[in-house]
Amino acid sequence: RTCPTLDPDTAARLRFLAEADRLKTVLRATTLFDGSRRENSAEHSWHLALYALTLAEHAARPVDTARVIAMLLIHDLVEIDAGDVPVHAAGRDHAAHALIEARAAHRIFGLLPAAQGAALLALWQEFEAATSDDAIFAKALDRVQPVMANLATGGGTWPAYRVTRAQLQTRVGAQVLRGAPAVWQALEPAIDAWFAASAQS
Amino acid sequence: RTCPTLDPDTAARLRFLAEADRLKTVLRATTLFDGSRRENSAEHSWHLALYALTLAEHAARPVDTARVIAMLLIHDLVEIDAGDVPVHAAGRDHAAHALIEARAAHRIFGLLPAAQGAALLALWQEFEAATSDDAIFAKALDRVQPVMANLATGGGTWPAYRVTRAQLQTRVGAQVLRGAPAVWQALEPAIDAWFAASAQS
Ligand SMILES: [Ca+2]
Repeated sequence: RTCPTLDPDTAARLRFLAEADRLKTVLRATTLFDGSRRENSAEHSWHLALYALTLAEHAARPVDTARVIAMLLIHDLVEIDAGDVPVHAAGRDHAAHALIEARAAHRIFGLLPAAQGAALLALWQEFEAATSDDAIFAKALDRVQPVMANLATGGGTWPAYRVTRAQLQTRVGAQVLRGAPAVWQALEPAIDAWFAASAQS
Repeated sequence: RTCPTLDPDTAARLRFLAEADRLKTVLRATTLFDGSRRENSAEHSWHLALYALTLAEHAARPVDTARVIAMLLIHDLVEIDAGDVPVHAAGRDHAAHALIEARAAHRIFGLLPAAQGAALLALWQEFEAATSDDAIFAKALDRVQPVMANLATGGGTWPAYRVTRAQLQTRVGAQVLRGAPAVWQALEPAIDAWFAASAQS
């Protein structure tokens, strides 16, 4: 009996997609906008892709929306091996973590047929480097979505991480301004109001 | 004091994106591939977009991958108002549910600036109609992903819904074969094996 339709490339892609399912179990520090539970990295990636789809015209420079969306869909897959590191977490070893993530990228994208895996690995590396216009916009969205979650939940993770307004500007605001200035400017009044109220209490 | 940068279109888009967050709380019948919990419709949508990104060359006819991905990112947003209806659930009133979903689409996409909301509403309607090549492929992916989850979890929802091999072919297989035949063919040996073992037990 022969199986003429069973193609090793299809099988490899289905194994990759089954492995990708594990991203749904990686929890982030940020909660949902209703505060009911912590967000996972898969639904976070969906949300960011929707940000790119709807906010593309607010990119600092013209972007290829489809590339930005592809980048955001895959940008967190390395967390299946490396876990999520909150942007405000202290004392992390950046170099060591970057190495773990690079190994994870090779393992996970390596599940795909060679050419496709290499293309997605390059797209992930472009996101990490954050120097192309597409990656700068993608990074801005990745940074701004948790700000909206925190604003929706009375400060969210900011109090626990003792984030100051100045730290938020350096760690988050600068990147959002670089890639999506209009979005940061739209949120600034609410951000300023929260930190002003927090300082008084 | 003036606020020269506060743009009503940006504000509308941010309200839409905050509303979209609620899709993370809509639970589907299907579980994660590890069986640990039920899947929500936001992470499901992310997974499907990744299916489109990696399986595009297996589409029955040439597709615009970026359009398919956009379609899959938004296809379940109506569930924020209408909830998820499992494909194998019995006794549902299709016409009534379609009306609820259409109203939900108008409300949710109506949060966006008019032109953008109309474009996404049309894309959602195209997905629902399932007549364009892009929509046929998108529907095939939406149908096949839960099959993979069920296969990964010893049958998943099939026993509870008392699904037969023939019903799976009619409700699921036909749509997958129509949009992504190679993917169905790759899974058929495992599907046949599960139903054969299930019939013997
Ligand atoms: Ca669906």
